Amino acid sequence: MNIIVEPLEQDWTWLLKRPQAEPAGLLKKIQDIFRAIELNGDAALRSYTFEFDKVQVEDFLVGAADIEAAVEAVPEPLRSAIQTAKSNIETFHKAQVETAHKIETMPGVYCWRKNLPIQKIGLYIPAGSAPLFSSLLMLGIPALIAGCKDIVVCTPPGKDGKANAMILYVAGLLGIKKIYKAGGAQAIAAMASGTETIPKVDKIFGPGNQYVTAAKQLAGQLGTAIDLPAGPSELAVYADASCIPAFVAADLLSQAEHGPDSQVVLIAETKVIAESVQKEMRIQLELLPRKNVAAAALQHSRFIIMKNTATAFDLLNAYAPEHLIIASNDAENLSALVINAGSVFLGHYSPESAGDYASGTNHTLPTNGYAKNLSGVSVDSFVKKITFQQLTQTGIRNLAPVIQRMAMAEGLDGHAAAAMARV
Amino acid sequence: MNIIVEPLEQDWTWLLKRPQAEPAGLLKKIQDIFRAIELNGDAALRSYTFEFDKVQVEDFLVGAADIEAAVEAVPEPLRSAIQTAKSNIETFHKAQVETAHKIETMPGVYCWRKNLPIQKIGLYIPAGSAPLFSSLLMLGIPALIAGCKDIVVCTPPGKDGKANAMILYVAGLLGIKKIYKAGGAQAIAAMASGTETIPKVDKIFGPGNQYVTAAKQLAGQLGTAIDLPAGPSELAVYADASCIPAFVAADLLSQAEHGPDSQVVLIAETKVIAESVQKEMRIQLELLPRKNVAAAALQHSRFIIMKNTATAFDLLNAYAPEHLIIASNDAENLSALVINAGSVFLGHYSPESAGDYASGTNHTLPTNGYAKNLSGVSVDSFVKKITFQQLTQTGIRNLAPVIQRMAMAEGLDGHAAAAMARV
Repeated sequence: MNIIVEPLEQDWTWLLKRPQAEPAGLLKKIQDIFRAIELNGDAALRSYTFEFDKVQVEDFLVGAADIEAAVEAVPEPLRSAIQTAKSNIETFHKAQVETAHKIETMPGVYCWRKNLPIQKIGLYIPAGSAPLFSSLLMLGIPALIAGCKDIVVCTPPGKDGKANAMILYVAGLLGIKKIYKAGGAQAIAAMASGTETIPKVDKIFGPGNQYVTAAKQLAGQLGTAIDLPAGPSELAVYADASCIPAFVAADLLSQAEHGPDSQVVLIAETKVIAESVQKEMRIQLELLPRKNVAAAALQHSRFIIMKNTATAFDLLNAYAPEHLIIASNDAENLSALVINAGSVFLGHYSPESAGDYASGTNHTLPTNGYAKNLSGVSVDSFVKKITFQQLTQTGIRNLAPVIQRMAMAEGLDGHAAAAMARV
Repeated sequence: MNIIVEPLEQDWTWLLKRPQAEPAGLLKKIQDIFRAIELNGDAALRSYTFEFDKVQVEDFLVGAADIEAAVEAVPEPLRSAIQTAKSNIETFHKAQVETAHKIETMPGVYCWRKNLPIQKIGLYIPAGSAPLFSSLLMLGIPALIAGCKDIVVCTPPGKDGKANAMILYVAGLLGIKKIYKAGGAQAIAAMASGTETIPKVDKIFGPGNQYVTAAKQLAGQLGTAIDLPAGPSELAVYADASCIPAFVAADLLSQAEHGPDSQVVLIAETKVIAESVQKEMRIQLELLPRKNVAAAALQHSRFIIMKNTATAFDLLNAYAPEHLIIASNDAENLSALVINAGSVFLGHYSPESAGDYASGTNHTLPTNGYAKNLSGVSVDSFVKKITFQQLTQTGIRNLAPVIQRMAMAEGLDGHAAAAMARV
C-alpha cells in the first residue's frame, strides 16, 4: 500500500491504468459455444451445463412449486430486508419514467417522443461463489417499471440441480416466472439465439465472470443489445481532513473483497489522512472472512496525495470511477466538481454498500473508464424512445419550402419532391 | 416490384431480411488504418488523405476565415431554410433536457440523478457524393444543448483541398470551431486515438459509408462509444384505403434514392392500393435525377398485402423499420400499435423528408432491426446520467440492518461492515 505524492498530470494515465486480463483463446471458446447452441439448442445447453456446472438438468424451466417453496427457504429477516430494498429501488426508478409531451415546433408541425418498452429482456444472475439476488432486484425492477413484456432470467443450477432459493424468492416477489437453470456463456448464447426452451431476447443484462462478459460482448456484436461492457468493480474515495478514517477504510475494504481484480483508489488531501486510513485498513482487514481476496486486490490499490482539491477532482475525472465516495463535510459542494463517475456517495454516512443493495439507486454501473461516455442502468435501459410527428396541411405548407431547399442542396431531389407533392 | 399477398408469420423473417453485405478484407484494412494513425498520427492521416481523397492537406484545421467566407458562399434562401430547421430542431431537443429531482426513498436516504455532458464529442460529416450538412445540424444541436465541452467535426476535403461551404456555414451558425479536413476510416481512427492535431474524443457520431461504419465499430470495441451501429436507411409505409397513392409513392422513392442498398417496404391493406402506389411510382421515378439509384433499390423492395390491421402491425413490429409512415386517416389511433420503429410519421402530410431535415426530430435512427432495442440520437446520447446519494445519520441507521442482511447473504461481509461501522 504505497503512497504516491502529487503525481504529475502526464503520469495519471499509467498510474490509474486498469489491468487488461483476458485469458488466451477465450473468444474462440465462446464462439464455439454460440455455434453449438445455435445448432443444437437445448441439447447443447444440457451438455455444457453437465460439463461446466457438473449437473444434469432435464427441465431448464424452474417450476412454480420451486418458486413458492423458496419463500420458506429464506429466513424472515432477510425477506423483510429484501422487501425494504425493493421498495426503495422502486421509488427511485419510478421517478425515471417519462411522459410524452407533444411539441409544436412551428405552426402545424407536431413532434413528440414516446418511451416504449423493449419487448424481450434477458437477465443473467450469477449464483456460483455468491448468489447475486441483489442484481435481480436491480434489473428486474426497472424492467417491470418500463413494462417489458417478456422477462427471462437465467441463473446457474447448484450442485443439487436446483436454482438458488434467494434468487427464486426475489423472482417470486417481482412476479417473474420465466426462470431457467442455465449459467455461464452457454446461458448468454441461449438468450442471444434462442433454444427450444429458452426464448431469444432483444437485450441482455447482468453481471458475470470473464466467460459471461465475453459472451455478452459477442452477443452484442451479433445484434442483441447488452447493458454495459463489464469489467472489475471499482471504488475511488476522495478524503479530506474532515473524513472519518475508519469509515473510509471500511469502504475501501468492501470494494477490495469483491475479487482480486477489484480496483481500489484513495485520493487524500494529506499524507496523514492516507496513513490513518491505511492503519485502520490493516486492523479491519484481519476481521474479514474474505481477507485473502481483499489483500490480493489491495496489492494493486492506489493511495495518492493531492493537496489541491481541483486537481484531485481532475485526476478523479480522468480515472472516471464506477463508484466515487466524497468523504468530506463539504461533500455536497465538492460534488459539483464531478464530471465522470458511475455513482457518487456524499458525506460520512453514505457507504458504497448502500447503493449496492438498498438505497434505491442502481448498482449496474459503467466500469473501466466507461463512466466518461456511458450511464448506469436505469429505466432508460429498458425502453426505446421513439419519435413521432404529425404535420397538418398548414404545417407542411410552412415546412415544404425548407425541406425542398435543403434536400436539393444535398442532391436528394426525391426528398424535395415528397414534401412538395403535398403542397 | 412483385406484390406478396398475406405472407404467413413463419415467412416474415426471411421475407424482410436485410441484405448483409460486407466487403471481404474490410476489417483488416480498417485495423491497418487504426494502427498507422495510432503510430504515426498526422503523418499517417495526411498520407491516407492523399491516397483516398486525392488531395494533399497540410493543415487539417479549417481556418476561421474559411468559416466566415462560407456565409457568402451559401445562397440566402438555403441559409434561411437552414435557420428554420435549426430553430425547429432546437425546440424539439431542448424539451429533452432533464432536471435533477432529489428523492427521499426512505427517511434520511436521498438519491438523485444528474445529467452531465460527455466531455469530448466527435462528429463525422460525409461530404463525398452529398455534403450532409443536415447531419451536422442533427448532431451539433443536441451536443450543444447537452453542454459538451469539446465538439470536434471531421469532414473530408473536396478536390480543391477545402471543406464543403454548406457544412462550414452550419458549423459557423452553431459556433463549432474545431473542424478538421479529414474523411473516411482514417478520420474515425484519428478521433478514436487522437493525433497531434485532432483531439481524442469520448464518443463518435455520424453517418458514413461502409468504411466509416466499420471504423466506428472498431472504435467502439476499443473503448470509444459510438452513436449507433449503422446500416442502410429504411422506410416502411402502412397504407390503407384512405391513403393518397401519389404521396406514398413519393415517400417510397425518396427512400429509394438514398442508395442501391436502401430498404423500401409497403404494407397495404389491399392489392388495389399497392397497385395504385406502384403506378404512381413508375411515373414519378422518371422525373428523378437519381433515377438509377432508386431503380436499383426498388429491385429488392417489398410490397406486401395484409388485410388485417393488427397482423400488418405485427409484421411491421417484427421488421422494426428505421422510418415508418402511417398513411391513413386513422394514423393517430393506429400509432398505438407501433412497438418497434425509429421514427414514425402520421397521416398524409408528414413525409419522411420532414424528419430528415426540418420538423425538429432527429434523423440519426436505428436501422437493421435495432429499433427493437435501441433509440435514435437525442440529447440523451450526449450525456451520462450519474446517480448521487447522501444519507443522514438517521438514513444509515434505517438502512444499515437491511444492507447488513443482504450483504451477508451474498457472502460479502465487508459490505455489511461498511454499513454497520456507521451506526
